[in-house]
Amino acid sequence: MTNAYAAAGVDIAAATRAKELMAAAVRATHGPAVLAGMGAFGGCFDLGAAGVAGSGILVASTDGVGTKTLVATALGRYASVGQDLVNHCVNDILVQGATPLFFLDYVAAARLAPEQVAAIVGGVAAACQAVGCALLGGETAEMPDVYAPDGFDLAGTIVGIVSREAMLPRPNIAPGDLVLALPSSGLHTNGYSLARKIVAQSGMSYHDRPASLEGLSIGEALLAIHRCYLPEVQALRAAVTLKGLAHITGGGVYDNLPRALPAHLGATLTHGSWAIPPICTYLVEQGDLKEQEAYHALNMGLGMLAIIAPDEAPAALAACPEARVVGAIREGAGVALV
Amino acid sequence: MTNAYAAAGVDIAAATRAKELMAAAVRATHGPAVLAGMGAFGGCFDLGAAGVAGSGILVASTDGVGTKTLVATALGRYASVGQDLVNHCVNDILVQGATPLFFLDYVAAARLAPEQVAAIVGGVAAACQAVGCALLGGETAEMPDVYAPDGFDLAGTIVGIVSREAMLPRPNIAPGDLVLALPSSGLHTNGYSLARKIVAQSGMSYHDRPASLEGLSIGEALLAIHRCYLPEVQALRAAVTLKGLAHITGGGVYDNLPRALPAHLGATLTHGSWAIPPICTYLVEQGDLKEQEAYHALNMGLGMLAIIAPDEAPAALAACPEARVVGAIREGAGVALV
Repeated sequence: MTNAYAAAGVDIAAATRAKELMAAAVRATHGPAVLAGMGAFGGCFDLGAAGVAGSGILVASTDGVGTKTLVATALGRYASVGQDLVNHCVNDILVQGATPLFFLDYVAAARLAPEQVAAIVGGVAAACQAVGCALLGGETAEMPDVYAPDGFDLAGTIVGIVSREAMLPRPNIAPGDLVLALPSSGLHTNGYSLARKIVAQSGMSYHDRPASLEGLSIGEALLAIHRCYLPEVQALRAAVTLKGLAHITGGGVYDNLPRALPAHLGATLTHGSWAIPPICTYLVEQGDLKEQEAYHALNMGLGMLAIIAPDEAPAALAACPEARVVGAIREGAGVALV
Repeated sequence: MTNAYAAAGVDIAAATRAKELMAAAVRATHGPAVLAGMGAFGGCFDLGAAGVAGSGILVASTDGVGTKTLVATALGRYASVGQDLVNHCVNDILVQGATPLFFLDYVAAARLAPEQVAAIVGGVAAACQAVGCALLGGETAEMPDVYAPDGFDLAGTIVGIVSREAMLPRPNIAPGDLVLALPSSGLHTNGYSLARKIVAQSGMSYHDRPASLEGLSIGEALLAIHRCYLPEVQALRAAVTLKGLAHITGGGVYDNLPRALPAHLGATLTHGSWAIPPICTYLVEQGDLKEQEAYHALNMGLGMLAIIAPDEAPAALAACPEARVVGAIREGAGVALV
């Protein structure tokens, strides 16, 4: 947990402790169909082991867009958070090698304006359609007294499928493997409590347009749509053997890259080898964030990381021109930025 | 929409209009693997049609427990809403003939106390384990400013499986078929905004123990756990041919029983043939609810309805002694209580 994040009102340690308390109860529900230790980006359910339908591993993940909804409300722009949600979830199962099958959304607020819900779910549907994923269901709930007057929550669940042979990460990740980065479009869906606090403390409004944001208002830059990396990952998979992928979400590169690595390996990333989105630089400056804080709360431009053998770098970069070699795998746990 | 429900702050018409506005966008995401017109309790995804894994229809549903969370907070009892959530979702896919495979939960609040989350997810896990369903994943989110200080939300997604032959409802539902009811344990997870308003207006507290509640406090009666009907449905399926099932949730028997019926058929249910839970009677009396209002907002004891051929009634009642014949299918849409 970073101090800046705690000061912004998000107690990651409390959430972590809660997860430990309930882990035993959760494990008790896991029969032989549940594959453990697969990095925990998404849960893995083996249809074959369950004896219910042919073969194939279902990969499922539930996530939300956090307090990005408050920026959406402030700007009156609702469709893009729907896209954020789907793209976030698609990326979360991509890192286990899975292809999306279907999605279900959950929208809740004290009051639901029909046009607002239609815009949100329209965004969900558009992002689903873009990746060939069925929007199979969903729920809208009005809960006076549970939600703050202007607050709404948006969460969703994706289910995808992967063959056992295609699951990621692969066990052969080794020191010397390269880390490629695919650029982020901005904050994606993490760090918004911190970002909103920094904006509020700086005395700026979401409608201000600092020169560094290249024409965008602060609000517009914060609402930049979470990128979906399905096309880039497909291009990479067609060209090279991906050994692992890491979607950089809450906890940043420090927490997420290790989820794709064996416990004894870590990574060293080299500053300057990836582009930092202007909105991230703006928040770091306005919030006076230390590097450790910034890379814990924000993706800082590292949207999706891919791990490949070093001799495959030319083919990977040719297949995905946006990718950059940003570092390498090494012995020893943890992520270092040098 | 009932007037009583609207007055309690739940605008069902607004939610309905939102659903219409987004229906076209959602349909655009539906390829041949999505089975339409199956009653919409849960979404149906045909693994075979998608060409991804053997055969089998995945049935998925997302739902929440609504403002029952506020009663849980008031009483400081968190585990049972976790059970409510799972049981609600299990029932929602049971009515399409599906067996649960796995579940994912979503818990969000302004602040998450670790012990609170552990109790909630412990309840989720216990209910999953009881039905052999894996708790495959989940998300906890702290969202200051989105949630009211004491509010928390609890939603979940279930995925189950059914063979095409076993899907419900069956197309042969006909006039003269009988409607069986399995009793509810109380409000289950619907009607809590109305119930909380009635309790507040009556000047009572959740800790009061009206004689009619047979020793329970109002809060305890309101927190009665949403029943899971998996054992009863399995017993019925082993004994008779179930033609259809209806889980009585939001919108009550009026909205939910027709979801299991062809458009030209309806049902007439006979008062006195099922037991009304004391908490429902209490709310009807304190809130001066008309019958139409009560049966729209509350299940009124009708937890799960099953449709069977009339000659199978003896076998059904022998297999499931709690079941009661409460009415019959007839020509003409709608549900009448006589």
